[in-house]
Amino acid sequence: MRPHVVVIGAGPAGLVLARLLELQGITSVVLEARDREYIENRTRAGILEQPTVDLLRDIGSAERLDREGMTHDGFYLRFDRATHHLDFHALTGGHATVYGQQELVKDLVAQRLAGGGPLVFGARVTDVDLSADHARVVYEKDGVQTEVDADFVAGCDGFHGVSRHAIPAALRREHTRAYPFSWLGILAHSTPATPEGMYCAHERGLSVHSMRGPRITRQYLQVPADTALTEWPDERIWDELSTRSAADDAPALDRGEIFDRSLAPLRSFVCETMQYRRLFLLGDAAHIVPPTGAKGLNLAVSDASTLAYALGAHHATGSRTEIEAYSATCLPRIWQAQLFSATLTATLHADPTDPIETGLRFARLRRWTESEAERRALGEVYLGLPFPTPWKYPEASGVA
Amino acid sequence: MRPHVVVIGAGPAGLVLARLLELQGITSVVLEARDREYIENRTRAGILEQPTVDLLRDIGSAERLDREGMTHDGFYLRFDRATHHLDFHALTGGHATVYGQQELVKDLVAQRLAGGGPLVFGARVTDVDLSADHARVVYEKDGVQTEVDADFVAGCDGFHGVSRHAIPAALRREHTRAYPFSWLGILAHSTPATPEGMYCAHERGLSVHSMRGPRITRQYLQVPADTALTEWPDERIWDELSTRSAADDAPALDRGEIFDRSLAPLRSFVCETMQYRRLFLLGDAAHIVPPTGAKGLNLAVSDASTLAYALGAHHATGSRTEIEAYSATCLPRIWQAQLFSATLTATLHADPTDPIETGLRFARLRRWTESEAERRALGEVYLGLPFPTPWKYPEASGVA
Repeated sequence: MRPHVVVIGAGPAGLVLARLLELQGITSVVLEARDREYIENRTRAGILEQPTVDLLRDIGSAERLDREGMTHDGFYLRFDRATHHLDFHALTGGHATVYGQQELVKDLVAQRLAGGGPLVFGARVTDVDLSADHARVVYEKDGVQTEVDADFVAGCDGFHGVSRHAIPAALRREHTRAYPFSWLGILAHSTPATPEGMYCAHERGLSVHSMRGPRITRQYLQVPADTALTEWPDERIWDELSTRSAADDAPALDRGEIFDRSLAPLRSFVCETMQYRRLFLLGDAAHIVPPTGAKGLNLAVSDASTLAYALGAHHATGSRTEIEAYSATCLPRIWQAQLFSATLTATLHADPTDPIETGLRFARLRRWTESEAERRALGEVYLGLPFPTPWKYPEASGVA
Repeated sequence: MRPHVVVIGAGPAGLVLARLLELQGITSVVLEARDREYIENRTRAGILEQPTVDLLRDIGSAERLDREGMTHDGFYLRFDRATHHLDFHALTGGHATVYGQQELVKDLVAQRLAGGGPLVFGARVTDVDLSADHARVVYEKDGVQTEVDADFVAGCDGFHGVSRHAIPAALRREHTRAYPFSWLGILAHSTPATPEGMYCAHERGLSVHSMRGPRITRQYLQVPADTALTEWPDERIWDELSTRSAADDAPALDRGEIFDRSLAPLRSFVCETMQYRRLFLLGDAAHIVPPTGAKGLNLAVSDASTLAYALGAHHATGSRTEIEAYSATCLPRIWQAQLFSATLTATLHADPTDPIETGLRFARLRRWTESEAERRALGEVYLGLPFPTPWKYPEASGVA
């Protein structure tokens, strides 16, 4: 049976999209290059915007999230040895919810499989053919090659995936900014510094302190882009985390056993256009934000919502207007998230190559703590701007 | 008679300071390298913040300003062929007042001379000696060298003045950013595009449209930093102004006779510290902002207010606390103006060397038009953050 849509990639973008399509009667096959265990244990961001949580509730994917997710009002900001709480909830009414991306992926995979929806693990896509009046995706699994024909292809296979390259290079405008620093991330058995996540802006660079449980912390250090993990023994990591988070109004940082460490580069990236013929790009396949501000997962869900609406409209009425507008509908909100992430990144990180930047970034930090209007503006984006469209096409109001 | 203070430079910083000192019984001599006609006709910015106007009224220097100044609520912003009015007055209660800097200088010079306060034109300072337990300034006028001893020196002689260099280089941290573009400014006999100033952000670069009267306009074009005025015949200037300001909701730009043109580089600059022994730097001698946002004159008045308070405290009570804190008291507000000017500059100008910047700057422009909180935050700084201190030391509350 030929599906309406082939979804390449079982990350948040692909899994949420498949669910949104299913609820509108649109069939799909989800192809995932990795195995189930891999994607369910890949540690990623864990801050969900209010519109993301609202959508997940709406589609019945938030049962465990509502039980286990931690509701947060904003974040802590520390600089000049003083701690500030940016309470965005009080200003805008929304919430952030802390819930690991891998937990959400587990929930969505279980939901997909329970519903009997096709989800193929270990399926490595080797070709996306958009030349005919339908789409054809070829994948290889266990040495066997399979072709799937469909009306549409959703490219949800991340920055390094094959989907984006199915758009001819001449039609793609790729906007990129690389940063001269990376994030060294650790998981540790230690007591969190603050009940909500904290960014510490220090002349030596950024440190980030968040919790995964009452005695498990996730913490990050700004490190030079060319550093290696071998240069960072535990002692050096703790010393640096302690120095950057030192404050006159808080006790010294609790140290503990580090049981996971990783190094991640920072990048801003947007691909314009996000569609070509019967192919649509979603999430990291189309855009990357630096982790500061935790927008990546939320953008993926926003894209899925926009595409589900457009495909829903097409499915219900035959209209092509919404699918032709997909990229243009997504991009303004994506650029807002890019601006937010780039601003937060520039403000919180040290960039010793720009001698005037230090003064400017500490001025911005002070503005955030001194001006309610600045905090409100920041909070509007942190807690999540509205999605561009509802996820569900209101079939009842149409003529179909 | 030995004055308390030698003021080097009769721009807004020096002239306002001299007035503020006079009103607290502190004597000063103002030395100006140029002649009166020159400084009274030097075209500069013309947007006064609310705190600047309040101070000028308070010291009796606002009679003509109140008569002739144009009260503005904010500015116009045009991009993507649409015009937006950013009405900051409605959000914050303050006003901007448009009044040419040279007009204010005329008023302050007249006031100074009417009061008999020493103001020496054509006095070129050749030495600022801070080695003794008083300050000594040497100047040359008409071939004659004169020494003036005083308790303090106020360096108000601009970016290219001698004062800053009297601070040993090792004690000065100079933060600089140069921009790869300049402003080509014109004065023309033409009808203003909008009743308040307008910034047009276009893919080709910025244009600025403001009025000096019902039939006189002051307009600017972003041009490459290495351009020459000879490359810009009238026709080319009008074509470029027209292209960048073209809109679907407004008529084409009125063209007229250009009677003045100039080219100005853009620079962000802050000198930390702003004081050394008995010397204090004010205004452009200590910091430069790009013209976007028109903060330069207002920062000069803010510095004058802060120094007048500190010298007033010393004069009234002998306290050195306030004068020792001068630089640290001024700098946070200066950095806020720097941040504001740098942000406005980055948002409004085209920088084709940074491929992701275009998307980010148009995202910011959209935020300013879509989010009231963003507009309010912008307006707070545009209309003027409060000065760091009152200008007058409250002598009555002291024991002196």
